Formats: sequence, structure tokens, C-alpha cells
Amino acid sequence: MSIGIHLVGDLLGVDPKKISNADTMQDIMESAVKYGKLTKIRSYYHQFSPSGVSGIVLLAESHLSFHTWPEHGLVALDIFTCGPTENAESALEFILGKLAPSSIEYKRIERGVDFPRGVQKGRLVEATV
Amino acid sequence: MSIGIHLVGDLLGVDPKKISNADTMQDIMESAVKYGKLTKIRSYYHQFSPSGVSGIVLLAESHLSFHTWPEHGLVALDIFTCGPTENAESALEFILGKLAPSSIEYKRIERGVDFPRGVQKGRLVEATV
Repeated sequence: MSIGIHLVGDLLGVDPKKISNADTMQDIMESAVKYGKLTKIRSYYHQFSPSGVSGIVLLAESHLSFHTWPEHGLVALDIFTCGPTENAESALEFILGKLAPSSIEYKRIERGVDFPRGVQKGRLVEATV
Repeated sequence: MSIGIHLVGDLLGVDPKKISNADTMQDIMESAVKYGKLTKIRSYYHQFSPSGVSGIVLLAESHLSFHTWPEHGLVALDIFTCGPTENAESALEFILGKLAPSSIEYKRIERGVDFPRGVQKGRLVEATV
């Protein structure tokens, strides 16, 4: 039993062209969120110069984040959800399908062990930037 | 050698009053970022109803995120930085000092093993919400 599952993946050997552009990464991540039936609250994507993208999707179920290093063909990806584990796995599979890494350093971490799984169901009442 | 260090902490036995309010959590996390000499790009904090807060700070060095479950006295905290490890540790120490958990489930994960540590130095050229 755990309150959530956290998938930690370092994707290696990714085509630098796929992970250099914020718009491309945004398309992939927003689609992954939908594919995994995750509930987006808000997302940010940042284009670094000369290359590299970071992005974060705050979910009702927790979050998805990534950071890319095109010069290394590397993406550091995290998907943390308090919803069904298979939804996080679906989102991960979608991303792997799009980015096609040659290998992945992968860990599954149970978060909040001994607490019951459960998404915060309450209505969002405030957002402060 | 690794491109970054990822501190994963599940804080247990935290006073629910400390972790129920987005403004309180925002104060703690923004101060932790400064204390740890991390570089904020942007941050979001969300107040759930009836309780619970999620927040995410996108850093030039990667990210800091947390999710709280006041009903369980639980905070799931992540600090991932591609800068000096001690900066992440300082931010964590600051947060632990403020939230005073009775215990912590703690993991240190090396991200991007075999790649050199390094913050994306480039100027931020685009942000898409």
C-alpha cells in the first residue's frame, strides 16, 4: 500500500533533435498526460539556449516533470501519480514510444508507504504564482 | 559522476496545520530555494479543498516539488538539482527545520549517471504555458 507511485526514468540515447525544442516536448508531454488519463492542472515548458528543455505538469494526481540534455541524448523524466499505477505506466509508455531511447535507467518508488492511494478530489480553490 | 542529484523524501508525522495552507507552504518553499542558493524560474502552488497543497518550483538547476496530505501528516518532497549537491541538501535541511517531521523516508538518487554535473547555463528564451 502506498499513497502514490513515482516512476523515475533516465532515458539514454535519445535523438537530440527530438528533445531540443520546447514545442516538440510540450506536444509529447501534453499528449502523454491525456493518454495516461491524468488530470492536468497547469504546465510550464522552458526552452534553454542554446539547447535543452525543462517542463513540469502539475497534476491533480501529483506531477510529471522532465529535463533534457540534447548534447548527451538524455532525458530525466519523473511521473508521480496518486491515481492508478497503470495510468502512470501508460503515460511513460507513450513518452518512450515517442522518444525511442536506446536504454533507460528506471526506478519505481512507492511514495507514502502505508497510506492508502488517493487523489485529492477537492475542487481547486486557489492558485498563486 | 552524475548530471544531477535527486533527493526524494516522504516526511511523516508533520503537524497538519503546517501543511494545509498554500500560502504557508509557498513561504517555506520559496525561502528554501533562496536558502539553498537555487535559481527559480517559476513556481506554482495549488490549494486543494478541503485540504492539501501541491507545489512545483521549476529551477534553472531542475526542480523542487511537493504534495501534502494533512490528513496523514504527510509531505512527498522532491529536490532535483544539477548544481552542487550541497545546495539541494541545504534546501532540504531548511524545509525539514520548518516542517519538523517525526520521521522521513529518504532516498538519494543519482540522475544521469556517467554524465558530468552541469546546469543549463543558457538564457531562457521562451516560456509556454
